[in-house]
Amino acid sequence: MSKTKVSEVNRVWRLHNRPIGDLSDDTLGFDEEAIPEPGAGEFLFRLNYLSLDPTNIIWMKDVDQYMPPVGLNEPMRGVVCGTVVKSNHPDYAEGMLVSGLGQWADYQLGTPGMLSPMGDTGPIPVADAFSTLALVGPTAYFGLLDIGEPKAGETVVVSAAAGAVGSIVGQIAKIKGCRVVGLAGSDEKCEWIKNDLGFDAAINYRTEDLSKALKAACPDGIDVYFDNVGGKILDACLKLMNLKGRIPTCGLISQYRATEPVPGPYNYEMLLMQRVRIEGFIVLDYADRYPEAIAALGQWMAEGKIKVRTEIVDGLEHALQALKKLYTGENTGKLMVRVKDV
Amino acid sequence: MSKTKVSEVNRVWRLHNRPIGDLSDDTLGFDEEAIPEPGAGEFLFRLNYLSLDPTNIIWMKDVDQYMPPVGLNEPMRGVVCGTVVKSNHPDYAEGMLVSGLGQWADYQLGTPGMLSPMGDTGPIPVADAFSTLALVGPTAYFGLLDIGEPKAGETVVVSAAAGAVGSIVGQIAKIKGCRVVGLAGSDEKCEWIKNDLGFDAAINYRTEDLSKALKAACPDGIDVYFDNVGGKILDACLKLMNLKGRIPTCGLISQYRATEPVPGPYNYEMLLMQRVRIEGFIVLDYADRYPEAIAALGQWMAEGKIKVRTEIVDGLEHALQALKKLYTGENTGKLMVRVKDV
Repeated sequence: MSKTKVSEVNRVWRLHNRPIGDLSDDTLGFDEEAIPEPGAGEFLFRLNYLSLDPTNIIWMKDVDQYMPPVGLNEPMRGVVCGTVVKSNHPDYAEGMLVSGLGQWADYQLGTPGMLSPMGDTGPIPVADAFSTLALVGPTAYFGLLDIGEPKAGETVVVSAAAGAVGSIVGQIAKIKGCRVVGLAGSDEKCEWIKNDLGFDAAINYRTEDLSKALKAACPDGIDVYFDNVGGKILDACLKLMNLKGRIPTCGLISQYRATEPVPGPYNYEMLLMQRVRIEGFIVLDYADRYPEAIAALGQWMAEGKIKVRTEIVDGLEHALQALKKLYTGENTGKLMVRVKDV
Repeated sequence: MSKTKVSEVNRVWRLHNRPIGDLSDDTLGFDEEAIPEPGAGEFLFRLNYLSLDPTNIIWMKDVDQYMPPVGLNEPMRGVVCGTVVKSNHPDYAEGMLVSGLGQWADYQLGTPGMLSPMGDTGPIPVADAFSTLALVGPTAYFGLLDIGEPKAGETVVVSAAAGAVGSIVGQIAKIKGCRVVGLAGSDEKCEWIKNDLGFDAAINYRTEDLSKALKAACPDGIDVYFDNVGGKILDACLKLMNLKGRIPTCGLISQYRATEPVPGPYNYEMLLMQRVRIEGFIVLDYADRYPEAIAALGQWMAEGKIKVRTEIVDGLEHALQALKKLYTGENTGKLMVRVKDV
C-alpha cells in the first residue's frame, strides 16, 4: 500500500460571493470535485496544513491589491504545506514536502513557481517550520529589521502583538536590545506576550485608555511602530513618534472588513513634524532573501529565544469559520488548518 | 553718513492671538518699539527681505510641530535676510549680509546659531540667492533627490507646482531625466510651469477632474509624488502609485487652516498594496549639507536650467496680508516681503 494513496474525491473551497465588508457563510462554497491530473511539468500534492492569514479577505475582494484577486468561482488561494503524491516534474519527487501559494483544496496541482520544496526542517517540527518559517517569520524579520531598522535601546511598539507576525516581531526586537511594547485585545494575550515572550509592556487596547497607556509604556516615545492594524492604534502611535521614527506597515486589518471608505490616520501630519517614514511591504518581495531569515529564525527558535504558538483547527471543512477568528481577534499566535499531520 | 544708519524706531510683528483655523487681522499686531541693544556675542541687523512660507501658520499654532511654536506676544518668527548694523561678535562685521531664522521686525538681534553669513552670491542677485538658495532650493533638492530618489525615465508628480518649492522640484526632476507632471491652481500657473519651466504636463486641480487628468498625464503611473499639500491631491496620487513608489512629504498646506481634525488619505492602504514609502522631512535637518545643494542649484541657475520667480511685496507693514496669499494660492513662485533692496 503506497503511503501517498490518493482518495477518490477532492474537496475545494471556491469563491462564490465577494465579501461586502465582513465574511459571510456564502462567501465560499465547499464543493466536491474530481482530483485533477498533473500535466507536463506539474505535480499533484495533498494538503497537510493550510495557513489562515489576514490578507485572505483582501484576495477575495475586487479592490486594488498586490496580486490579482481570486476570480469568482475559482478555488480560494492560500499559503499551503503539502506532500507530493504524483509528479511530472523531475525536481518534485513523490513524498516530497512543499510549501508556497496554493489553494484551499485537499488535492491540487503545483508548479515550481508557486511551490518550493521545504527541505529538511531539522529539529523543528514540520508544523512549526511551516507556520513560522514559511511566511510569518520572514514577514516579521524583514519588516522589522529592514524597514524598521531598530537600534538597541530604542522603543518598538507592535500591534496585533499576540498574532502570528506580531509575536515574532516583539521577540526579534527584544533580541536586538529594544524596549518592546505590545498591543493586544485581551488580558490573556497581554499576559502571554509579557510573561512568556518577554515583552517589556503589554496594553489591552480594548479595555485601556489607549493614549494614556501608550504614553505610560513609552516614556521615551516610539522609535519604531510595527503596524499590523492601522486605524486608531496607528493614530495613537503617530502622536508619540520620535524624530526620524519608522513605521513598517505590514497590515491594516482594522479596515479589511469596512464597507465604506476608511480615512487614513488623523495624526498624519506627525510624519512631517517628526520626519517619520511610513513604508508598506509584502514579504513576497524578499523571496530571494528567505534563506537569511530562515537561518536566523531557525537558530533563535532552537535557542529558545523565539517561541511560537500555533492554533490548529482540524478539518478543511472548518476553514471558513476559522478564518473569521482572525478579524475578531479570537485567535492567539499562528492560525492554521490541519488536514493531515506530517 | 554711515550706510548702515539705524533709524529711531523698530516695527515688530508680534503674535497677539493664535489663529483658530485661518489667519485673521488680529492674529498679529504691528507694534512700534525701541531698537534692541546687542549684548555680548550678539549683533544687531536690519531686515532686508522677509521670506513668507507655508509653515509660518504652523509656528503660530499651539500644536505638535518640529520646533516650539512662537510664544504669545513674542515677535513672529521668520526666515530673514539682513545686514549687520552693530556687532559684538568678531565673525559678524558691520555691513555683512546674513540669513537664517529671525523675526518679522525692522531691527533684531542675531547670534551665530540662528543667522549665517550669506557670503558672496556671485552673479546671482542677493534677492534670488536669498529666495531660492536660503531655504526653498535646498528643500526641493534634498526632498526630491534624497527622499524621492527619482531615476531617469520615471514619472514625478509635484503639487503646488507653481509655488516656491514645487517649481524647483519639477525643474530638478527634469534635469534628472524624469517625466514631470505639476498640479497648480490656475491656468496661468499651469502655462508657466509647462511653457517656461518645461514640465511635461500641468493639471489645474481646481477646474479639471483630478483623477482623470492625473491618469491621462501619468500613463505609466507615478513613481515619485512630491507632496506639498496632502488632502485630495495626495489621495488621487496614492491611487496611481507604482510599486515601490516614494512620497517625500514636504508640506500639508491643505490642512493648515483646518479647525477640525483632518483625516489622513482615504487611499492609505495603497502604501501597503504597492509597498510605497511616505517620508516627512524638514530642510533644517540637512543644514550640514547645504553647501552641496547651494553649489548644484547655483550652477543650474547660472546655466538657465532652473528659473525662479519671486513675488515681492514692498513694506513690512503688508506682511500679514501677504502671507494670506500662500494659503489661498494667489501667489506664484517665492513670496517675500522687501524692506530694503540690497
